[in-house]
Amino acid sequence: MVDFVADYHRDIESFPVRSQVKPGYLRPLLPDSAPAEPETVEDVFADLWSKILPGITHWQSPKFFGYYPCNVSTAGMLGEMLCGGLNVNGFSWITSPAATELETIVLDWLGKLLHLPEEFLSTSGKGGGVIQGTASEAVLVVMLAARKRALKQVSSAAQGMSEAEALSKLVVYSSDQTHSCVIKACQVASIATENFRPLPTDASTNFALSPAVVRKAIAADVEAGLIPFFLCGTLGTTSSAAVDPLEELGDIAKEYGMWYHIDAAYAGNACICPEFRHYLNGVEKADSYNMNPHKWLLTNFDCSTLWMKDSEFLLAALSNKPVFLRNEATDNNLVVDYKDWQIPLGRRFRALKLWMVMRLYGTSGLQSFIRSHVSSAKHFESLVRADSRFEVMAPMTFSLVCFRLRTLPGSQDTSNSLNSKLVDALNRKGNILVTHTELSGIYTVRFAVGATHTELQHVQAAWEVIQAEANHLLNGKQ
Amino acid sequence: MVDFVADYHRDIESFPVRSQVKPGYLRPLLPDSAPAEPETVEDVFADLWSKILPGITHWQSPKFFGYYPCNVSTAGMLGEMLCGGLNVNGFSWITSPAATELETIVLDWLGKLLHLPEEFLSTSGKGGGVIQGTASEAVLVVMLAARKRALKQVSSAAQGMSEAEALSKLVVYSSDQTHSCVIKACQVASIATENFRPLPTDASTNFALSPAVVRKAIAADVEAGLIPFFLCGTLGTTSSAAVDPLEELGDIAKEYGMWYHIDAAYAGNACICPEFRHYLNGVEKADSYNMNPHKWLLTNFDCSTLWMKDSEFLLAALSNKPVFLRNEATDNNLVVDYKDWQIPLGRRFRALKLWMVMRLYGTSGLQSFIRSHVSSAKHFESLVRADSRFEVMAPMTFSLVCFRLRTLPGSQDTSNSLNSKLVDALNRKGNILVTHTELSGIYTVRFAVGATHTELQHVQAAWEVIQAEANHLLNGKQ
Repeated sequence: MVDFVADYHRDIESFPVRSQVKPGYLRPLLPDSAPAEPETVEDVFADLWSKILPGITHWQSPKFFGYYPCNVSTAGMLGEMLCGGLNVNGFSWITSPAATELETIVLDWLGKLLHLPEEFLSTSGKGGGVIQGTASEAVLVVMLAARKRALKQVSSAAQGMSEAEALSKLVVYSSDQTHSCVIKACQVASIATENFRPLPTDASTNFALSPAVVRKAIAADVEAGLIPFFLCGTLGTTSSAAVDPLEELGDIAKEYGMWYHIDAAYAGNACICPEFRHYLNGVEKADSYNMNPHKWLLTNFDCSTLWMKDSEFLLAALSNKPVFLRNEATDNNLVVDYKDWQIPLGRRFRALKLWMVMRLYGTSGLQSFIRSHVSSAKHFESLVRADSRFEVMAPMTFSLVCFRLRTLPGSQDTSNSLNSKLVDALNRKGNILVTHTELSGIYTVRFAVGATHTELQHVQAAWEVIQAEANHLLNGKQ
Repeated sequence: MVDFVADYHRDIESFPVRSQVKPGYLRPLLPDSAPAEPETVEDVFADLWSKILPGITHWQSPKFFGYYPCNVSTAGMLGEMLCGGLNVNGFSWITSPAATELETIVLDWLGKLLHLPEEFLSTSGKGGGVIQGTASEAVLVVMLAARKRALKQVSSAAQGMSEAEALSKLVVYSSDQTHSCVIKACQVASIATENFRPLPTDASTNFALSPAVVRKAIAADVEAGLIPFFLCGTLGTTSSAAVDPLEELGDIAKEYGMWYHIDAAYAGNACICPEFRHYLNGVEKADSYNMNPHKWLLTNFDCSTLWMKDSEFLLAALSNKPVFLRNEATDNNLVVDYKDWQIPLGRRFRALKLWMVMRLYGTSGLQSFIRSHVSSAKHFESLVRADSRFEVMAPMTFSLVCFRLRTLPGSQDTSNSLNSKLVDALNRKGNILVTHTELSGIYTVRFAVGATHTELQHVQAAWEVIQAEANHLLNGKQ
């Protein structure tokens, strides 16, 4: 299997980046039921090459520029292998002390690398970090903690409001660029959909939240008797890597006693470089902060790191103590049991891979990795800007370039349909993979540099592929 | 790393099963912050042996009899390695079609092996299976689906009740032996804690739910104006592997229009053997069913399989369609996007390992695996029964033996403290690992046979260790 994986990575550029199969391709290729008797490893490998790989979209291809990246590294892979080999279930400290303690220590390491305020580190006594599977889970658990805190505040204010009534009045604020995980967290946590405020953004703020818009929305809700309780700022939105004004949002959250969370799933990783750290200013005003080393810090999926200043309400929201899990270390409050910091009970030893990545790359290696992608993305942006048929749709801050093809005068195509055709054609041919978004209703091509093996040459080649496809599209119309 | 893992498994019996470290052991052994420059793989391996392994509780040791098992196999490990090597993020069909399609197919395979009714298979058109990380997540997502359905029913009944009010009236039923994930799901889903009914069980029903008790509780709640909406039956409870009367519970759920979920996290795996399948009778009346191949079916953690008859309300509860994820296959309803079947957005390609396990063992191999543990557990039970100082506390149905040491006449120790000392001493010495529970307030030792490498000889040796410790404890008191 090591050879298979090595061969796969060696040959990865030979595959179309986006799988070219049609829905339902696999069922006719496989038996209807499990084999009664054991098959050989050779049978399985044969099927991997012939039946599974054609259905893979190659996130690890250096020609993958879609979504945000999903990094892999030998260090991360070694950590995954060890995690699988030990296969411990570290839900409580006692069930494998190293799993809990290494996670706490490594999250402190990474927190220091990000210059998070001391309160976010475990050494503060009240705060600390935890590895979640995804940013969706990170946002959900902090929203549950915030809900617990808000309901307690409402009930202690003795306003004679039932918990059910209070729950129906809780309001969540974020920008309309915020990741869909925020509304999903609302769906799960019974925050009424009509109480989720995806506040409008536009090009005038580079698609970042405007503090004035936030204040206005909150004032209207308070006037209407609602209860603002959760504000999510984003550092590096999914559509355009926009950066919300984190400091001003922190002031607003404080003024209204709201939980303030910062989601930096992608761009937070860049903040390990001093030249990017200023984007994180304002984190000192946040209650919680998450980013995903599995996106852009060489750590195999899944690994979403979450820090908070005070775990009190998280524990109040999520902990329970069944008798079959009781043990001396827990009963005496000597340890952290991460089961109470997350939705699942069971948990993998994910700290191993993050620890190995941090050691085998060193801070300098991780910073070089980020800088290399940023530099390639800058080069790509300059190429787009140099071709007058294209325009850049949002400032390039990290390693995401948002652009589109302009329409020609007299063209039948709207800009949206033209660019949609461009993306479809690129992905269908499979030489590169890009994805799209809409910015103020404008269909926009997203080009995210971040796959582990992507170098300047791949970005240069990708631009040539895009230009060729543009030539084809535009000439076809003329 | 392959060698390290192989050496670890070769030497695993030489380690104390339960880690012997004290809380906080690791911090003084590691630096305060990440290294600035890369370290070598040799440095990392040296630390693994000297610093990490002492903090591991060895779930893979054949002398591990605690909790429920957490299986590992070469087949599962190969699947994990490939999952990490491909490192695709299969949240939507389009992001790696094979990841979605193989999962659907393999869940159909396993569903057929369990003789689940056709409605639970994807081929039914409305139902199907999905891999969750843990049973906790499986129970949570079905509770969210049930909540959605119940709130819709209430509102369409036009009773003039607001959604907030209806939510506050929803009631969940299970036995007091049900896994803690059910109350955790209530905590997350805003089901009032006082509306969770952990109904009493006792030895008279072997700690299974009594239908009469369930009916009485529901009638009282309906009388009080509450809304029964979710009934969880358990096949193989955590404490004693009790089996709720699944058929009768199904009738009750139908009568009251409740969502009926069956949690068979551990014991469901045994139902791949014809001689155990009858325990699953009643599943045809359930809305949803989950079990964990990562517990007792050789599939590395995490892999919790969930089936449901109709995904409509799950999708209503969890789906959303951000523009940056839109694609033709999804827009045309040609595919399943598993992101809408779970809490996280991102997802690992976990179907690979389950597929490899089913192929490389074959049904016959998997059945032999289960039977070997059941047989060893039966032997252990007969050993306990043959020693009059001990008593068996609950029927041995699968591979869990619940027992305790009787107190001697005139002993200072209560039975509970005596058995607590027994468990502590066994785990402290580390020759075997067992855990405990309480059954009707009686401290009970749990001996779960299920680690991959556990054979009859290990069970025999474990009994000798237990007897020796009992001799020591009892003689010390005489």
